[in-house]
Amino acid sequence: MPETTLSPLAPEKFPDIPAIGGVRVATRACGVKYKGRTDVLLAELAEDTQVAGVFTKSLTASAPVEWCRKSLPGGIASGLIVNSGNANAFTGRLGDEAVEQVVEAVADRLACRPSRVFAASTGVIGEPLNFNAITDELDALAADLAPGKWDEAAKAIMTTDTFPKGAYKEAVINGTPVKIAGIAKGSGMIAPDMATMLAYVFTDAAIPSPVLQGILAPACVRTFNSITVDSDTSTSDSLMLFATGAAGNAADFSGADDPALDDFKAKLEAVMLDLAHQIVRDGEGATKFVEITVTGAENDAAAKTIGLAIANSPLVKTAIAGEDANWGRIVMAVGKAGERAERDRLNIAIGGVTIASNGLAVEGYDEAPVTAHMQSPEINIAVDVGIGNGRATVWTCDLTHGYIAINADYRS
Amino acid sequence: MPETTLSPLAPEKFPDIPAIGGVRVATRACGVKYKGRTDVLLAELAEDTQVAGVFTKSLTASAPVEWCRKSLPGGIASGLIVNSGNANAFTGRLGDEAVEQVVEAVADRLACRPSRVFAASTGVIGEPLNFNAITDELDALAADLAPGKWDEAAKAIMTTDTFPKGAYKEAVINGTPVKIAGIAKGSGMIAPDMATMLAYVFTDAAIPSPVLQGILAPACVRTFNSITVDSDTSTSDSLMLFATGAAGNAADFSGADDPALDDFKAKLEAVMLDLAHQIVRDGEGATKFVEITVTGAENDAAAKTIGLAIANSPLVKTAIAGEDANWGRIVMAVGKAGERAERDRLNIAIGGVTIASNGLAVEGYDEAPVTAHMQSPEINIAVDVGIGNGRATVWTCDLTHGYIAINADYRS
Repeated sequence: MPETTLSPLAPEKFPDIPAIGGVRVATRACGVKYKGRTDVLLAELAEDTQVAGVFTKSLTASAPVEWCRKSLPGGIASGLIVNSGNANAFTGRLGDEAVEQVVEAVADRLACRPSRVFAASTGVIGEPLNFNAITDELDALAADLAPGKWDEAAKAIMTTDTFPKGAYKEAVINGTPVKIAGIAKGSGMIAPDMATMLAYVFTDAAIPSPVLQGILAPACVRTFNSITVDSDTSTSDSLMLFATGAAGNAADFSGADDPALDDFKAKLEAVMLDLAHQIVRDGEGATKFVEITVTGAENDAAAKTIGLAIANSPLVKTAIAGEDANWGRIVMAVGKAGERAERDRLNIAIGGVTIASNGLAVEGYDEAPVTAHMQSPEINIAVDVGIGNGRATVWTCDLTHGYIAINADYRS
Repeated sequence: MPETTLSPLAPEKFPDIPAIGGVRVATRACGVKYKGRTDVLLAELAEDTQVAGVFTKSLTASAPVEWCRKSLPGGIASGLIVNSGNANAFTGRLGDEAVEQVVEAVADRLACRPSRVFAASTGVIGEPLNFNAITDELDALAADLAPGKWDEAAKAIMTTDTFPKGAYKEAVINGTPVKIAGIAKGSGMIAPDMATMLAYVFTDAAIPSPVLQGILAPACVRTFNSITVDSDTSTSDSLMLFATGAAGNAADFSGADDPALDDFKAKLEAVMLDLAHQIVRDGEGATKFVEITVTGAENDAAAKTIGLAIANSPLVKTAIAGEDANWGRIVMAVGKAGERAERDRLNIAIGGVTIASNGLAVEGYDEAPVTAHMQSPEINIAVDVGIGNGRATVWTCDLTHGYIAINADYRS
């Protein structure tokens, strides 16, 4: 594969993220596939850490995803083990056995039940996971467990990523300050033999598992499920939220809608959105970060469908790569989305300048600011489809020669 | 835009297609947009020519598509007028008026009702159609009307196409030989400011319009609606079938399922499939023609959904461009299709060699023929998802630097 260079849309540096009470992490170069870099992340979680998760909708999900789905209803997590280099997907019974071997070995070191160890694998599909490479190093990993080290954790789970991804916010619950730290990896919405989306968020807040799940799922819809790089869905996509309770806040919540959780929810969503945007910024071959807001749709879901139709259109994405304010392709994408739209009320603005209004090109609109906007690395597209009050925002990147180079110009 | 070079997948030459009784055509360089080439096709059809049509599902369909939809229930066609260079789409009331001006002028020359003139436009979206460029040349066009000339007809409707597309078959209905001639254009399933799919089939068979429609729609599902270049859907896609009756066959059919029509249906579908394949072979940037057959799905529709998920996956298409037998990406695409599939019964064959079986990579399969197959211009992928008896075949091309060059590397 070609040498990877840092994405031009990468943040300046990895953010400062403090240790989270009740979480210790360790990373190690275990040689699962890569040489000369860390490829396994182990996290130890305080007793009774509450857990929530959202996993890929793929019907060919990986073995570790199936394991996590089975264990999630228990609501408690004691450990997390993630490897890069091999996805342990489409590996049949061997794959299930590999997960069992790994989580049992981890449970042994952390003195917990295997069902409280969550797992993920990301990398090549269809090759048996050499689980001994991981289990042989577990003693060393357990000995290295320490608070903080988020940049190392984010690096160990990278595949085609060109930079490690982290985000951090503080919130207040019932007067008690709590911390929210997240790491993620992903460089396409998915590139299944090398990339995939994994995101792990850790908080010291005390929040029971059912409430946590009720918070995580809708936030995922507006963040990770509102980004797309290439419309492909991984066999391994996983998002998990661990709440250790070390902050000691009062935790007698009526449910996910309890107003005491409003600030936490807002900050959690900010962390998730930050990570989601970083994944888009590391999209394979990306040179433009694109925000698409759709308003006036029949409802919010319809707005999102239209937004993703625009964001996934190869013709829209190549036009953006070419710095061409080609709104004809946006009209096409609205038309193919299959949701209601009123041709004669359609409005399209690029960079804040309305260039099509009420179903017609705006004659003599000021092209200079639009041209300048298309040449910038951050593109803003707003579409109103003239039907109702539904709205949604989605994010994507452009489609460039770089994407083809990464995905076609080498033999795996 | 970059200079276009002939697709490496183009047929050797335009086929020999005889004149069809009851059809006369003319083409002309009217200067709608292009210079130095023909850009308008006029066809005159014998009295009482029966018509059937299938049009884009886009909710932002072009003005001529809306016109054709309105006129189709009449069942009779006297003329067809097609221009390239401007799609007359997203042009509001001006667009509707332009269609009316053109079809009324054509109706005047052909001495028929405007509602019996069918129209199509393909090219840039959102610019008013300079209909005078067409109407000013109608006398000259009408004077040039002549039988045959299919290659000229196919050339006049091209946009980004690198070769004209035609196909021909003969059939027998109730003992009488009939002719079926088709022309088409399209170079992406769509590239809305320059390309789109148009296909016109002419036969001298006598078949009443309702029967004709009952034949055309299902054949479209298995041909034009089973191809994809880039998953984008045009505002202008149109397929029409005209039956002049000049062959004089007995036409007392019980319906589209009348066995007397079996041979005609088979040959018509062959013409349509030939044209559909030519569109894929002229896909923007295409270097490989890819046939994907899905079997073992819950039903035929599910098989087609899975097939199109594979065919539209940028990761599968770039792997094929890279001559990489990357079946992990095929597994991913099956998983994201949303239709039932049994991971542990999944079988994948490339070039006739089974490389994944019962949910596992086949250890030690013979790689040499697979590698040779991936290097050839015709790629064959077969997937069995292990659920039921549903099957479908779809066709696509690879995703290459050429696609990016055509769609991103210039300003329109």
